[in-house]
Amino acid sequence: MRKKFIHTYVSVDCTVLGFDGERLNILLVRKEKNSEELKLPGSLIYDDEDVNDAASRVLFELTGIKKMTQRQFRCFASPDRASKEEDIQWLDVEYQPNINRLITVAYLSIIRIGKKLNAISKFKETVWVPIDEISHLPFDHNEIITESLKEIRQWVELEPAVVFELLPQKFVISQVHKLYEEIYNKDIDIRNFHKKMQQLPYIEKMDEKQVNVAHRAAMYYKFKKTEYNKYKINL
Amino acid sequence: MRKKFIHTYVSVDCTVLGFDGERLNILLVRKEKNSEELKLPGSLIYDDEDVNDAASRVLFELTGIKKMTQRQFRCFASPDRASKEEDIQWLDVEYQPNINRLITVAYLSIIRIGKKLNAISKFKETVWVPIDEISHLPFDHNEIITESLKEIRQWVELEPAVVFELLPQKFVISQVHKLYEEIYNKDIDIRNFHKKMQQLPYIEKMDEKQVNVAHRAAMYYKFKKTEYNKYKINL
Repeated sequence: MRKKFIHTYVSVDCTVLGFDGERLNILLVRKEKNSEELKLPGSLIYDDEDVNDAASRVLFELTGIKKMTQRQFRCFASPDRASKEEDIQWLDVEYQPNINRLITVAYLSIIRIGKKLNAISKFKETVWVPIDEISHLPFDHNEIITESLKEIRQWVELEPAVVFELLPQKFVISQVHKLYEEIYNKDIDIRNFHKKMQQLPYIEKMDEKQVNVAHRAAMYYKFKKTEYNKYKINL
Repeated sequence: MRKKFIHTYVSVDCTVLGFDGERLNILLVRKEKNSEELKLPGSLIYDDEDVNDAASRVLFELTGIKKMTQRQFRCFASPDRASKEEDIQWLDVEYQPNINRLITVAYLSIIRIGKKLNAISKFKETVWVPIDEISHLPFDHNEIITESLKEIRQWVELEPAVVFELLPQKFVISQVHKLYEEIYNKDIDIRNFHKKMQQLPYIEKMDEKQVNVAHRAAMYYKFKKTEYNKYKINL
């Protein structure tokens, strides 16, 4: 029998990462109104849209921010990714019946957790969930999140400045250290890390210490973007 | 009027880069048998395939190599990417009529140009074309190639070893220099480059010089993969 070509609907799914000072978190939305179940924010794409436009639309509806940095990282197209009964039923109600096949293009964005989100439309209720507390999500959303963590590592290696977009404007070294441990999912020696940070020409010690902390107050630092741009690798 | 969701066919397109000692080349195939017109090797994906499987299939049919390294780099989904009359006609004949919409997922691979290809099936006749000599290709294949050049830069920054997979087993520094100039599309100072190369712990000077060259014979070098793996950045 002659093989059939795929004829499919297409969606985008957005993984938005934040850092709460201790752990990497991901921004999820409710599967349905008042539902306990969560999912990645996403949408089927319209006939007149490119995938990148659809991702921008979802991110805008989710955060109220226009033109968030979005990094397209992978197309998920496994033949059975939307074949579970519960997922088919959800598609029936949320979109339309007979969505027999659905591929998705996944995007990665980052945002400071403290930033106020002005969600519009269906993404009114957003939830930050620490990566290691995420339970079963619909479709292959768990796999997409796993892959997004590989992508954030690549992104940080290409553009170390990404790390500082996850941190508060003023930060202490132990926060940067914790964030790197989270991103690389491993213990990193704090003394060596401190030394490395001190040598970075694009972070600057401020004239300000932590206050009201239980441990010895640490100095605050800030990221100097103009210095950073000077030091970018340019062959 | 309610907006329609996209319902589309999906293809993969493979950009395979090689280096001829002077210039980056890309591996193209004939649009039709005996045709002068060229295109990227690709295929619609079958109903039972994931996109990654389809790319592996195309690369195998193109080169005879199983499990070539393939880097998925972007989904191209512009609503008008397959709307030119000539492209619609070609789809009619090559695949089936009424392919009204087509998105593609693009892959990047690299290969040594000297390597013998054992193409099977429809990709019998392959052509290496220097990047800067590529003329008008069907669909958005020119745009895909432009984006593949951005991707090779990211890949090289993440994994410098990629450069050595494009070079012969034994190479001279001026070849590496030329290849970097091609990848970054800019002039790179040769003296500084020589110095940097000498310092790399994972390339080793061989006990062998070029022969029969018009200029002063240069020493050959080789890439030491085990040394390289030791020096990979591991936080």
